[in-house]
Amino acid sequence: MIFLDKLRAIQGTNNSLLCIGLDTDSGKLPKFLKKHANPQYEFNRQIIAATKDLVCAFKINSAFYEAEGERGWSAMRETLHCVPSSAISIADAKRGDIRNSSERYARIFLEEFKFDAITINPYMGKDSVAPFLRSPEQCAFILALTSNAGAKDFQRLKVGKKFLYQKVIETAMKWNGKKNIGFVAGATNPKDLKSIRNYAPTVPLLIPGVGAQGGSVKAAVQYGCDLKGEMAIINVSRSILYASGGEDFAESARREATKIRDEINFWREKFFKR
Amino acid sequence: MIFLDKLRAIQGTNNSLLCIGLDTDSGKLPKFLKKHANPQYEFNRQIIAATKDLVCAFKINSAFYEAEGERGWSAMRETLHCVPSSAISIADAKRGDIRNSSERYARIFLEEFKFDAITINPYMGKDSVAPFLRSPEQCAFILALTSNAGAKDFQRLKVGKKFLYQKVIETAMKWNGKKNIGFVAGATNPKDLKSIRNYAPTVPLLIPGVGAQGGSVKAAVQYGCDLKGEMAIINVSRSILYASGGEDFAESARREATKIRDEINFWREKFFKR
Repeated sequence: MIFLDKLRAIQGTNNSLLCIGLDTDSGKLPKFLKKHANPQYEFNRQIIAATKDLVCAFKINSAFYEAEGERGWSAMRETLHCVPSSAISIADAKRGDIRNSSERYARIFLEEFKFDAITINPYMGKDSVAPFLRSPEQCAFILALTSNAGAKDFQRLKVGKKFLYQKVIETAMKWNGKKNIGFVAGATNPKDLKSIRNYAPTVPLLIPGVGAQGGSVKAAVQYGCDLKGEMAIINVSRSILYASGGEDFAESARREATKIRDEINFWREKFFKR
Repeated sequence: MIFLDKLRAIQGTNNSLLCIGLDTDSGKLPKFLKKHANPQYEFNRQIIAATKDLVCAFKINSAFYEAEGERGWSAMRETLHCVPSSAISIADAKRGDIRNSSERYARIFLEEFKFDAITINPYMGKDSVAPFLRSPEQCAFILALTSNAGAKDFQRLKVGKKFLYQKVIETAMKWNGKKNIGFVAGATNPKDLKSIRNYAPTVPLLIPGVGAQGGSVKAAVQYGCDLKGEMAIINVSRSILYASGGEDFAESARREATKIRDEINFWREKFFKR
């Protein structure tokens, strides 16, 4: 099934735009998990089992796994086996290199691990992105405007009358022949999010920045969704993963995820009469 | 020793600006290496042993190791153990993410693997780069103008009167309090290389694009070096690694590396009266 159809079906069936970001930090895991062979994996396994009916996607932030060396890569691989087919799996890897090298990143993340999607840094241009656009079943979320303070340094520079991030969207839309491009669009500035949705009315937007980073759920829904109130993937990581540091971490994560999913759906009803 | 001093000392002692790029492709290894437990590592071990007195640096392109999964990460780790202290080790990883995530990439590449340097994608701005700038002994080579066709898509957009890549350099130079920033500057367009050296007269430039990608050694030396004929790190990968596909691959690599080092030094003598 092509990526867009899969995403639409999942968002419908699960009635959720929530994505849980598995920024699983070994230093923050509940102590009792340390007895497990791979605590990072065990944590993810339980989080996924407790929340999989509440989300449309799980996003695996590769930085947190690479930081653990080979064991982290195993944890990433095993975590993927726990993500059900009723959720999109996103590699938050922010890769992008000359074609020859991007091919290798595509091979591991898309061909071997079989992630449904991956985040890509556009700075190196078309040929650096192309290897991630081969299959219409897999989506490349290209960084447009990120949720961090440094987004202003380059992404918001003016290129003629447009911001660089708008040029990135405009240009990347020309590469979207297989309809498998999406954009990363931070929730931290509602005006920008609105502008991004105007530039790309129908593509999926992966929206980080809600929660610990200060973006509002309301703005993420109001400006991040397409006209039907879909195609926004609203990522929340820390406030769900670390809702409790005790043995009840998975139940607590479920409670927090339910709250955010419901808040998202409250605003969807309000803005899109769903 | 701070990075700049280490680089200067090594370029002096080895009388070389050559960097060998270990873009070690499992699919291109000599067949007789297949009997080894980790052929990718064994190939690198022999290349390094055969060429270490001819170079100032070895650059490990992480894409080629990640593509092999856990075994590739082991190969990268073991390869680093073979790089002598008389050469700079560069992780060509092109990372960059929100601070929280960049911290993790810095942890594995700089703290655990202890690379002397890493390549960084600047698109996400200052806080995404900061975690790689902690130690004056380790250098972040920030992508300015890359050597691929896609460099024109965004890096050469006009921001006011400047190209985006020039703005990147200008801005990043403000973050250079520890004198541990360098730039990636493709050799494929001599005019641009000259402009980059004007913007950053004394910092190290990592220069890919010579050889298989079509850049000339002459231009890389003439425009990439500082006023003393130093501080350019001229990367060559494929033409050295795959000079021969047979049992003589390491000797052949040595022969090719010698040729390129000598060509570099020929132009250094010519342009810098060394």
